[in-house]
Amino acid sequence: MTRRAATDQATSARRTVEDLLQRVQHRLTSFLAAERAHYAEVHEHAVVAIDALADLAAAGGKLLRPAFCLTGYLAAGGDPAEPGIVDAAAALELLHISALVHDDVLDDSRTRRGKPAVHVLHTTLHRTRGWQGESRRFGEGVALLVGDLALVYSDELMAGAPRGAFAEWHRLRSEVMIGQYMDVAAAAEFSVDPDLSRLIALIKSGRYTIHRPLVLGASAAGRTDLAGALAHYGEAVGEAFQLRDDLLDAFGDAARTGKTAGLDFSQHKMTLLLGWAMQRDSRIHDLITEPGHTPDEIRARLLDTGVPADVEQHIAHLVDQGCAALADAPLEPQWRAQLTDMALRVAYRDK
Amino acid sequence: MTRRAATDQATSARRTVEDLLQRVQHRLTSFLAAERAHYAEVHEHAVVAIDALADLAAAGGKLLRPAFCLTGYLAAGGDPAEPGIVDAAAALELLHISALVHDDVLDDSRTRRGKPAVHVLHTTLHRTRGWQGESRRFGEGVALLVGDLALVYSDELMAGAPRGAFAEWHRLRSEVMIGQYMDVAAAAEFSVDPDLSRLIALIKSGRYTIHRPLVLGASAAGRTDLAGALAHYGEAVGEAFQLRDDLLDAFGDAARTGKTAGLDFSQHKMTLLLGWAMQRDSRIHDLITEPGHTPDEIRARLLDTGVPADVEQHIAHLVDQGCAALADAPLEPQWRAQLTDMALRVAYRDK
Repeated sequence: MTRRAATDQATSARRTVEDLLQRVQHRLTSFLAAERAHYAEVHEHAVVAIDALADLAAAGGKLLRPAFCLTGYLAAGGDPAEPGIVDAAAALELLHISALVHDDVLDDSRTRRGKPAVHVLHTTLHRTRGWQGESRRFGEGVALLVGDLALVYSDELMAGAPRGAFAEWHRLRSEVMIGQYMDVAAAAEFSVDPDLSRLIALIKSGRYTIHRPLVLGASAAGRTDLAGALAHYGEAVGEAFQLRDDLLDAFGDAARTGKTAGLDFSQHKMTLLLGWAMQRDSRIHDLITEPGHTPDEIRARLLDTGVPADVEQHIAHLVDQGCAALADAPLEPQWRAQLTDMALRVAYRDK
Repeated sequence: MTRRAATDQATSARRTVEDLLQRVQHRLTSFLAAERAHYAEVHEHAVVAIDALADLAAAGGKLLRPAFCLTGYLAAGGDPAEPGIVDAAAALELLHISALVHDDVLDDSRTRRGKPAVHVLHTTLHRTRGWQGESRRFGEGVALLVGDLALVYSDELMAGAPRGAFAEWHRLRSEVMIGQYMDVAAAAEFSVDPDLSRLIALIKSGRYTIHRPLVLGASAAGRTDLAGALAHYGEAVGEAFQLRDDLLDAFGDAARTGKTAGLDFSQHKMTLLLGWAMQRDSRIHDLITEPGHTPDEIRARLLDTGVPADVEQHIAHLVDQGCAALADAPLEPQWRAQLTDMALRVAYRDK
């Protein structure tokens, strides 16, 4: 199916998803506002962490995980009027906000959603006010607690979800934490191992962002029979998503992404892009690990390997493969079209 | 009631609690072993975070929160054969392990349960192996993820608990995160404010360790009518618990506690003990914030204020007050005796 045809067929399905996404955003806002009202009675300090979460929720992310969850649910015939699925989708977004806040500490990323990352903001605040102790420990400590609070709240929202969603929710969460550890460990060791890079991309991106949210949604609608097809789709499209992430980090526009650019270089992330490039040109390993090389120098050398162009081709192949996995699944045409459209959107996004 | 009489009366009740605590420990061990088996199939790196949790669980803490949860449940007439209450108690312990791992990063505490703290262990590993990046960021990042994993697993365990437990579980968790933030912020500002110190002690210690685990247990048994009396008991005994914590940090034996001693001094924790002492002797503020003063110097000056002796008296008063709050509650004598015994044990512990 061409991109245009898929987009047209998916219009009504997409509209239903978008309506529900607005309810998800509203659920998040009103949940955090109720918590804020509760803790405002306690002490002025008691609302600081909640306000940090509300700011991130309001800054508006891509809502990819809620969108896949809702799509999985609706494609499986779930009732759009069921409030529990809005809770589940809101829980996925708050879990993601937690992961972002903690991730930014792990990577020492300076900006998020176009603003200073939580740890950066509070490190600066500590320094400006001349408070006791080390500014870095304070700022990173606050981010640690803000992320913990988001993790706890995500779970509180999930309590309202349909029971069928829970097994996938549990697996998704432990898996993303373990995937993150594997990513951090691989960056520290920085040995070229594309199989490991691919496994990490599968676990911490493909499954977390696409496969499990989709299956969680379908399971919430009681349709475990769709799990196999959605898993194949999610893993392929998820790998495409991660490869696009690698390309955006290396070559994207920080003003568009709202994130620090070139972070994979400075944090020695053993991404698939870098792993493949290093297999062709071992000098890239040195450019990244030796001090004094600019991101532009690394970018130029990367382009010389031809790997970025190959990665583009591979992304196209993965999208085809993901969509083909749905060919025989018992899905209505509008939902197959919506999933095709979503695959194209995540694989060809610019932020 | 004298300590001896309370202890005797509580013997059979305590035995029931201790039997259940063994099942809690076993549930934790087998849950983590099953997760380890699952992730061992994925990659050798995928089990590192789980092993860190299993080590902490095996090192054996005081299991205070599980003990209060089980006591609340049994005192409220809950069925000891119900597996859900073991899940709830195990969830509280794993939540606590998460808090300890993250706390040790916040406070840069070097040892925990007699071993190097998680972030210390992984910082050292990174340095020894000569890995890429900053050793501190790696070690603290691993601790962040290990704590996140414990938080997620605690919730997974809680999924098996009786429904009545959930409201208290949710409040307990957000409250402890917010209390931790308030503690960190108060340490940074380091202004003498015993009302704020007391509020923080109430939120992050009294409610988290005693009041809410008790009420969670009683609610799991369907007895919300006990909530008021258990809250009064828990808040008073919880304050005694925190005051003992302050004394142990200042004057305790690190070999007994398994924790770094004098951390409240080095981390500028505005504890109740220090707040009161500074109200009597403002020089203590300087001893703590100026570099170059030894813990022994601060300890001697603290003793001179007479505050530690007053705190001992206050602890005794709080224990009386907490136990008096149970006088008219509809509890069987053996459970009232067990709660009295537990109050004495937490208020007069040496680790």
